[in-house]
Amino acid sequence: MKDIEIIARDFFGGEDLARCGGGHTICLHCAKCRADENDELFDEAKGIAAHIDATLLKAEAAHSDVSALCHTANKYQTASVCINSYYIPQIKNELDESIKSCTVVNFPLGAGSRLAVKKEARAVLEAGVDEVDMVQNLAAFKSKDWDMVIETIKAVAIQCIEYKKLLKVILETCYLNRDEIILSCLIAKKAGAKYVKTSTGFGSAGARVEDIVVMREVVGPKFGVKASGGIRDAQSAKAMLEAGASRIGASSVEALLTVKTS
Amino acid sequence: MKDIEIIARDFFGGEDLARCGGGHTICLHCAKCRADENDELFDEAKGIAAHIDATLLKAEAAHSDVSALCHTANKYQTASVCINSYYIPQIKNELDESIKSCTVVNFPLGAGSRLAVKKEARAVLEAGVDEVDMVQNLAAFKSKDWDMVIETIKAVAIQCIEYKKLLKVILETCYLNRDEIILSCLIAKKAGAKYVKTSTGFGSAGARVEDIVVMREVVGPKFGVKASGGIRDAQSAKAMLEAGASRIGASSVEALLTVKTS
Repeated sequence: MKDIEIIARDFFGGEDLARCGGGHTICLHCAKCRADENDELFDEAKGIAAHIDATLLKAEAAHSDVSALCHTANKYQTASVCINSYYIPQIKNELDESIKSCTVVNFPLGAGSRLAVKKEARAVLEAGVDEVDMVQNLAAFKSKDWDMVIETIKAVAIQCIEYKKLLKVILETCYLNRDEIILSCLIAKKAGAKYVKTSTGFGSAGARVEDIVVMREVVGPKFGVKASGGIRDAQSAKAMLEAGASRIGASSVEALLTVKTS
Repeated sequence: MKDIEIIARDFFGGEDLARCGGGHTICLHCAKCRADENDELFDEAKGIAAHIDATLLKAEAAHSDVSALCHTANKYQTASVCINSYYIPQIKNELDESIKSCTVVNFPLGAGSRLAVKKEARAVLEAGVDEVDMVQNLAAFKSKDWDMVIETIKAVAIQCIEYKKLLKVILETCYLNRDEIILSCLIAKKAGAKYVKTSTGFGSAGARVEDIVVMREVVGPKFGVKASGGIRDAQSAKAMLEAGASRIGASSVEALLTVKTS
């Protein structure tokens, strides 16, 4: 398996890569430089709830389920509530102002055309969402259609930067090996996202601690890492956060908070 | 359980419903009247292949998998090839002119906002696709947000009518009871679609013969019924077609053709 720096130099070309002030080993001349931004790391003093994206993305969810999730999010003050875009108006109405609204784009298959993904992102930003979790074009990635992978993320990233909203890129790590995870993280950074995220929750597996470790190693401290998929208890959540995650995506918020961790 | 006509009159109001020339028991004053259109029924003389939408919607599909599917579709002359929108240019390039290109919208969760679905549909129509399989807003349906269910379909239907392309509405029947399936069919018709389809293939179950029977009963002969999800052999395909389906969505095309049925 290759070293992160070798993968970066192989892919982006070695000549114009240099150390930058963004806390990265290698400068990728990202669409948005994060050198001056705050760290995006787990802060134990804030407690686990503040790092949770309370999530409900099931096809058969109804307004009452979303209301229950908002109630829980308000009670424990989670970072955000993440729902399908139909529910954006409802959560913006029901959440405390301190809690972000989050939705998904190109989800969960990650195989939408660049234009379809771009237009979908515009629609959710116009609806006023605070955070966008998009799936990278996994089909393009598997086919080594790199321009498409990068340009699809960039098409969303540019709009998120314009709206000053946070973009997370879902890698769907269950279908990727270590080198592919590294490359996906580099691409997400280069394209202007702010976070990488492991899983949709609809793939063959969810977050794994070893994937979080490598993702954090690639992106450095100025970039977020979200662990999602199959995290259902406090022990798993803590393991992910200690491995480098700064957000946890989970539907069972209370189960994640039942063991005192500090 | 209620009769189809009672559900229609309860929902759309009884006064302005009358028999129409579209082969329906009840006229819904649909967005697009089909009275003068041809029947959309299984034609045994054409053989089973001509009624198959050869389908590949897996997240981890690659160009080579799509090529193999196009090869099979060309060989057996299926009705269409149905892929995620990223692959539209590829299948338009690789398919015989006689075979339609088909993609999915608001797929598979059916919970996108009206604007997101509308924009996504525009993107795939601009990409030149012949057929659009959209998921009805299942979240809105479950929450009885009827205006949203209808308006989301209509937002896509109007564009498909403009582009002269075929719109199928996926009900995701595994999450619906009989009365809900009837109402979904009535709504899809009223909103201007041309087909109802059982399943995404990502829900808890796929097509069932009894659902096809009721769907065909509701929509009449001028409207299509597509059975999809879990249809993997000739016997199942034949059962669906005899029950009223006019299309079969399936990934294993050759398996559906291995028993001679006529």
